[in-house]
Amino acid sequence: MKIPKHIGIIPDGNRRWAEGKGLSKDKGYEQGVDPGLEVFKLCEKAGVEEVTYYGFTVDNTKRPMEQRLAFTQACIDAVKTISKENVDLLVVGNTKSPMFPEELLPYTKRQTCNKGGVKVNILVNYNWKWDLYELKGSKSSSNNINNEIQSSEISRMDLIIRWGGRRRLSGFLPVQSVYSDFYVVDELWPDFRSEHFYDALNWYEEQDVTLGG
Amino acid sequence: MKIPKHIGIIPDGNRRWAEGKGLSKDKGYEQGVDPGLEVFKLCEKAGVEEVTYYGFTVDNTKRPMEQRLAFTQACIDAVKTISKENVDLLVVGNTKSPMFPEELLPYTKRQTCNKGGVKVNILVNYNWKWDLYELKGSKSSSNNINNEIQSSEISRMDLIIRWGGRRRLSGFLPVQSVYSDFYVVDELWPDFRSEHFYDALNWYEEQDVTLGG
Repeated sequence: MKIPKHIGIIPDGNRRWAEGKGLSKDKGYEQGVDPGLEVFKLCEKAGVEEVTYYGFTVDNTKRPMEQRLAFTQACIDAVKTISKENVDLLVVGNTKSPMFPEELLPYTKRQTCNKGGVKVNILVNYNWKWDLYELKGSKSSSNNINNEIQSSEISRMDLIIRWGGRRRLSGFLPVQSVYSDFYVVDELWPDFRSEHFYDALNWYEEQDVTLGG
Repeated sequence: MKIPKHIGIIPDGNRRWAEGKGLSKDKGYEQGVDPGLEVFKLCEKAGVEEVTYYGFTVDNTKRPMEQRLAFTQACIDAVKTISKENVDLLVVGNTKSPMFPEELLPYTKRQTCNKGGVKVNILVNYNWKWDLYELKGSKSSSNNINNEIQSSEISRMDLIIRWGGRRRLSGFLPVQSVYSDFYVVDELWPDFRSEHFYDALNWYEEQDVTLGG
């Protein structure tokens, strides 16, 4: 089976899930932590080498405070949970803003957790413009743009899986996603099931990979 | 009805179409010119303000010569055909390479054709790295990244429609596509039918537009 080396995860639909249960929107985010661990374990088992999660963005922080606090806590919990696994863990985001949670600062340099293993990246207070603007300071004449952006430690993604039915990237790593195959799961992220992941892998296997050629 | 202001068109599947007809791959491209005009007319009728076509890329020029000549000619024919309409026409691509067709140089500044009207952009010898590298020369301290890339005259796309079944951007305008809704038509581009376009508009109408918020 052709296994993607690097999978991007867009865990969307937490607020719609909460509303569907008659809860306030902020109650959806904590339901996203367990699925994050589950999909990681499936990736590890399948031999995926790198996984990147779209945590929260600078745009998201403009939402009502109770939501902001809830998704920030969910990201902190997700990092703590994943750090108990055998991973090489990195958090990428704008740390120069008060919206970046202090607890995650140690992970802004890649940390080998336990025995190390799959590279796991979690975007926290990420912003695509912040990512690309790093190019403006570049003095390099190289042609490898991936090395000169803020998220330069995150490699090109082969497959992006988005939960929650929306068919768009919403600013998710514009450089690493240029050639990614994009699979959408209609179910909401808190309703994650392992079949979603395997359906995506089976679909990916049928895709040719041309990298624009 | 909610009409997208700007639609991006990825006209994929010309080579597969030719193979399906027992023709050599290069014979598929000339079949893509008429659909380009048809979809333009539907956009104009629907009140779309801007349309951008993914013509060919620098990566594509590495294909066998007969294919390269055929898709280059198809792009020249597409520009000539569209220039007979009431449009404001622009060609965007790397003109400093011999792969850029000389005939299209006049269109690298936006030309008002006839009475003018819909903005039509055609990417010719385009490359996403070439587009973003323009940022490196930027002296501006503004926060509007869209103004500082090579394709700065092309606005953010609301909806991208890709023909030919592939679910990926293949390097299509990484900055203008960050928030775009992405609709995939399984049929190949030379098999274009107006229903494809209307299905995409109907789907788009159901999407919420958050721009990352």
